[in-house]
Amino acid sequence: MAVRAAVAGASGYAGGELLRLLLAHPEVEIGALTGASNAGQRLGALQPHLLPLADRVLEPTTPEALAGHDVVFLALPHGESAAVAEQLGDEVLVIDMGADFRLKDAADWEAFYGSPHAGTWPYGLPELPGARAALEGSKRVAVPGCYPTAVSLALFPAYVAGLAEPEAVVVAASGTSGAGKSPKPHLLGSEVMGSMTPYGVGGGHRHTPEMIQNLSAAAGERVTVSFTPTLAPMPRGILATCTVKAKQPGVTAESVRAAYEKAFADEPFVRLLPEGQWPATASVYGSNAVQVQVAYDAAAGRIIAISAIDNLTKGTAGGAVQSMNLALGLDEATGLTTIGVAP
Amino acid sequence: MAVRAAVAGASGYAGGELLRLLLAHPEVEIGALTGASNAGQRLGALQPHLLPLADRVLEPTTPEALAGHDVVFLALPHGESAAVAEQLGDEVLVIDMGADFRLKDAADWEAFYGSPHAGTWPYGLPELPGARAALEGSKRVAVPGCYPTAVSLALFPAYVAGLAEPEAVVVAASGTSGAGKSPKPHLLGSEVMGSMTPYGVGGGHRHTPEMIQNLSAAAGERVTVSFTPTLAPMPRGILATCTVKAKQPGVTAESVRAAYEKAFADEPFVRLLPEGQWPATASVYGSNAVQVQVAYDAAAGRIIAISAIDNLTKGTAGGAVQSMNLALGLDEATGLTTIGVAP
Amino acid sequence: MAVRAAVAGASGYAGGELLRLLLAHPEVEIGALTGASNAGQRLGALQPHLLPLADRVLEPTTPEALAGHDVVFLALPHGESAAVAEQLGDEVLVIDMGADFRLKDAADWEAFYGSPHAGTWPYGLPELPGARAALEGSKRVAVPGCYPTAVSLALFPAYVAGLAEPEAVVVAASGTSGAGKSPKPHLLGSEVMGSMTPYGVGGGHRHTPEMIQNLSAAAGERVTVSFTPTLAPMPRGILATCTVKAKQPGVTAESVRAAYEKAFADEPFVRLLPEGQWPATASVYGSNAVQVQVAYDAAAGRIIAISAIDNLTKGTAGGAVQSMNLALGLDEATGLTTIGVAP
Amino acid sequence: MAVRAAVAGASGYAGGELLRLLLAHPEVEIGALTGASNAGQRLGALQPHLLPLADRVLEPTTPEALAGHDVVFLALPHGESAAVAEQLGDEVLVIDMGADFRLKDAADWEAFYGSPHAGTWPYGLPELPGARAALEGSKRVAVPGCYPTAVSLALFPAYVAGLAEPEAVVVAASGTSGAGKSPKPHLLGSEVMGSMTPYGVGGGHRHTPEMIQNLSAAAGERVTVSFTPTLAPMPRGILATCTVKAKQPGVTAESVRAAYEKAFADEPFVRLLPEGQWPATASVYGSNAVQVQVAYDAAAGRIIAISAIDNLTKGTAGGAVQSMNLALGLDEATGLTTIGVAP
Repeated sequence: MAVRAAVAGASGYAGGELLRLLLAHPEVEIGALTGASNAGQRLGALQPHLLPLADRVLEPTTPEALAGHDVVFLALPHGESAAVAEQLGDEVLVIDMGADFRLKDAADWEAFYGSPHAGTWPYGLPELPGARAALEGSKRVAVPGCYPTAVSLALFPAYVAGLAEPEAVVVAASGTSGAGKSPKPHLLGSEVMGSMTPYGVGGGHRHTPEMIQNLSAAAGERVTVSFTPTLAPMPRGILATCTVKAKQPGVTAESVRAAYEKAFADEPFVRLLPEGQWPATASVYGSNAVQVQVAYDAAAGRIIAISAIDNLTKGTAGGAVQSMNLALGLDEATGLTTIGVAP
Repeated sequence: MAVRAAVAGASGYAGGELLRLLLAHPEVEIGALTGASNAGQRLGALQPHLLPLADRVLEPTTPEALAGHDVVFLALPHGESAAVAEQLGDEVLVIDMGADFRLKDAADWEAFYGSPHAGTWPYGLPELPGARAALEGSKRVAVPGCYPTAVSLALFPAYVAGLAEPEAVVVAASGTSGAGKSPKPHLLGSEVMGSMTPYGVGGGHRHTPEMIQNLSAAAGERVTVSFTPTLAPMPRGILATCTVKAKQPGVTAESVRAAYEKAFADEPFVRLLPEGQWPATASVYGSNAVQVQVAYDAAAGRIIAISAIDNLTKGTAGGAVQSMNLALGLDEATGLTTIGVAP
Repeated sequence: MAVRAAVAGASGYAGGELLRLLLAHPEVEIGALTGASNAGQRLGALQPHLLPLADRVLEPTTPEALAGHDVVFLALPHGESAAVAEQLGDEVLVIDMGADFRLKDAADWEAFYGSPHAGTWPYGLPELPGARAALEGSKRVAVPGCYPTAVSLALFPAYVAGLAEPEAVVVAASGTSGAGKSPKPHLLGSEVMGSMTPYGVGGGHRHTPEMIQNLSAAAGERVTVSFTPTLAPMPRGILATCTVKAKQPGVTAESVRAAYEKAFADEPFVRLLPEGQWPATASVYGSNAVQVQVAYDAAAGRIIAISAIDNLTKGTAGGAVQSMNLALGLDEATGLTTIGVAP
Repeated sequence: MAVRAAVAGASGYAGGELLRLLLAHPEVEIGALTGASNAGQRLGALQPHLLPLADRVLEPTTPEALAGHDVVFLALPHGESAAVAEQLGDEVLVIDMGADFRLKDAADWEAFYGSPHAGTWPYGLPELPGARAALEGSKRVAVPGCYPTAVSLALFPAYVAGLAEPEAVVVAASGTSGAGKSPKPHLLGSEVMGSMTPYGVGGGHRHTPEMIQNLSAAAGERVTVSFTPTLAPMPRGILATCTVKAKQPGVTAESVRAAYEKAFADEPFVRLLPEGQWPATASVYGSNAVQVQVAYDAAAGRIIAISAIDNLTKGTAGGAVQSMNLALGLDEATGLTTIGVAP
């Protein structure tokens, strides 16, 4: 089998990571690479770590350039995917790494993104209840946001097991690549090294409704999420610290752990760590693995679930490849690894 | 006035930061410097940034070495301060940068530190209600822990104003200097750079009872604290993200902001940032300043208060000097700055 | 004495560091602050670490705004200082932190900067032979470049003592703040963290002729400099590794050390470290200190001199204040420190 | 084919990186994993990024544990390999990642390592003239040091082509993993973040004779090397800046570039970058690639050759796997990649 894949938006961080993974995928042949302002440039100048593709030149993102592939990945700015996808036809597998097709509620989309809602595609987080089946054979995939990936995986087992009150409090630290490659003063190395700083505080981050959607589905009731993202001085990685009040009485450290063991028992990429060991973003650097640990704080009456992912891999491009594998009927783990690059 | 100061424990990070500040203090003359395993060594080899003291040699920590000073700072391992303090006499100002005299509840001390409780000294966080008066003229000061400094300052205004339910959720990121200078594998640069990782999850961190003590006093009722500390890839700084459920009805963004403006109106070191600007640890690097911002998330019904401090300055040595100034009747800000070293 | 100082270019890294130092200077009162595209903005939004100046608003850089001060600091892009300086009058002290007036050779200027040469002002590196006297009472000062500061101080003693062949090889690592605050993709935190990369290789860096000028003056003969700058994953600091072939015969480790001891014996800011201890940029973080060490490699026949500075302090703003002190007849060290902020 | 491989010293950074690569090697089956003080521990606690091996337990390093494998990798402290190798028999492929068998000159060994010389094995840097042939079918391989890998690859083309005087000047920056996992105060994250510092200055670094050996062989005459290593604030990577005086007359930018193009034309892992692009350690992160660029500085009369490698991959474990492939008759690139993990 040779799956021919095109990548629209190959010059950014999501596109670069996707190409890194596709180069290692045994069933994929890399086809067209397109860009917007970078069209016409050598990839070697834009993504110097992708040596085997150094002499490839970016084309403009047009239907013609993207035609004739089995899979088209869209790594475009939010709001631009729908127009491109329409032109690709129903038979090509389209995997959107942007936000356009993640939300089910049009009002949520409009409130947070300020444009008309494009629709809803099968959601590329196979570990969520029911998600895997919806991806198998699908021709459309909406890849989750990086924070919702980390947070949903950390908390859904508590909600599925009925252990948690429907008010989640999440504080997550992200590496700077999550903010993209467009140069802005606050993302300069001089500014971010040595600094931790929050942003989008108070419910304004666009990933909030996506978390609410996932956790509410798991809980069977409306869950609120107080979400505070912070920017950490590292290029990659998300550490999500998620706490929920336990539904009393009856929740114990043992019942919490049992719920998490059950949720992840057969998952190829999610590892519930042995008790006493805690997730670290360095351990999943460059991998599709998710490290999860959970504790029950009896004094505070809260469950604390913590996950670590690589925001560019499992949080974006790895999740996209994992979903592609399912959509194409390949083994879900093809071309992906759970081995991080550390130290 | 020339205040003669001795520092017991001059080779560690707390001791080094204290010396950095004392060298810039116009009223202080630096006397004896002592150490344990480092006694006999040149300070230049241990603290190469303190050039003016490079040729000073550490003495062993003995009553004789510490005698004859106006102030003795103790930067010793937890549990060692009481024995040293007893030998110093009642007339010398003793400022303990360890945990020994912070807690009021002996049972809390024993549960978290596993040794008999030594007592309770005036608490060196002048910004808390009533704390400043207790420090003025005192001969004993217990310097707060770094996390309790950041967390208590972020949350006490909400509790004093009666705006918050008594269940706080805190996730804080600390630079590695908070873990001290004793070499351990997980603190190697190779391990910490590029990584975020939690520790002491689930209520086990020793700073938890200190936070509970401070916030309960502010609230007038018992407050629980779910506290998750994380280690961030930076040498200094604490960013504390603190959220509490608002007491309904009636809490608004305006009432929350008003409470914080009132709490910090006259504080020389705490700055409530203009709306829309968020604390960053880089902005307070090396300074005694505290940056605070607060938001009200109406959808989640929670107040989010965030503070940034330098864990070694306001969080340890700067707080110690600020308290010394009050105890000696000097202007509280003498020798301290609110200007960070950035970028 | 109250020296009234204006700063043109207050929103950049050089301007911000200068303000940090001036705020701590006992004889200076901060007057007008000007900017170009940032005129009209609050300084608190641009330099959030300078809390005492947070509510100051930048004015446009005009002769009117800069009039009426005792000192005007110019932190402007290269080539813009001459026009501003002309309008300020002969009686005001003008300190140019740009490159415009550093070079003596007009042809060098034109070759490296591509514009007409504006002139040559007394050079603000007092430690060089003869430089201090030229600064005393001067009304014009050209502050050295950051790399030339580090390199000239590391190597001039070897040349003054006649120990070195006139072919210097320099490899220096700089923190990212040396590249300024203007956002460019290669300066993003995502790009610089975890990476070392050279730039301006092969003689093209604009600081090269300035090094040649200084070292040739010290040697009494034309010195060539092979200079390779590298960008290091840290916000501040320069580590300059400078090697020269020893003039044979007769050079020994002892004669080399003696030359350096003599050169720096009375310097308030340069410290020749004890043998066996090596400079570290962290040790001079935020300070005006220069750490120097030197070795003689008998097998290779080369002298290796290494210096560490903070590029923004001694390398830019601290050097400017040191020169201002000399020009105004103040003690050279007023308002400056040799104590770094570490760890 | 299934090559059964044992790793002695599996808990350190070299051993961990080797296991990361072997897990991705299609022909290798991982056998015994041994350690010294860590014997008896789960690998998951020591190398948390190697999730597929998390439940493996380290055995003590004994002949029995290492028996029955096709390949034994030794990642042991210097001086310990010879005794282990002797017990393994002549038919097993032994790949020493330590220094013991790198040097040809016993006097060099004794001068730099202070113990008797164990011997000389085929040198695992296939890119050097003649090295590849010596590795094919060999039963013993001495893996080069990380610095000699970077430096020899950067400079040998200039020497082979007769373009360079026999006096090399090298300044290299290394990530902290090069210093190993044994906790020492100067390697703490608090110390290394934000700092550049040299070590082993003046000819004392143990990798110096290895560089001299390689470059002298290429030059056909004795080459001296002035080598200054520096520690950079990053976990991985070496950037080696290597300069040599050009043999005059006749050396030009064109002749220099031609020599490098010729040297690397057929190399699978070394990439001479297009003119104007410079190596960056981030671009080779986690990969076996070597990025090289070269310039000729006519004013200084020097060739500047710069290489970037990942010290743990091409500099240690990747070089070991590359040599293993040659020794076993596999394709040299099996299981290795030239694609870095960036940003």
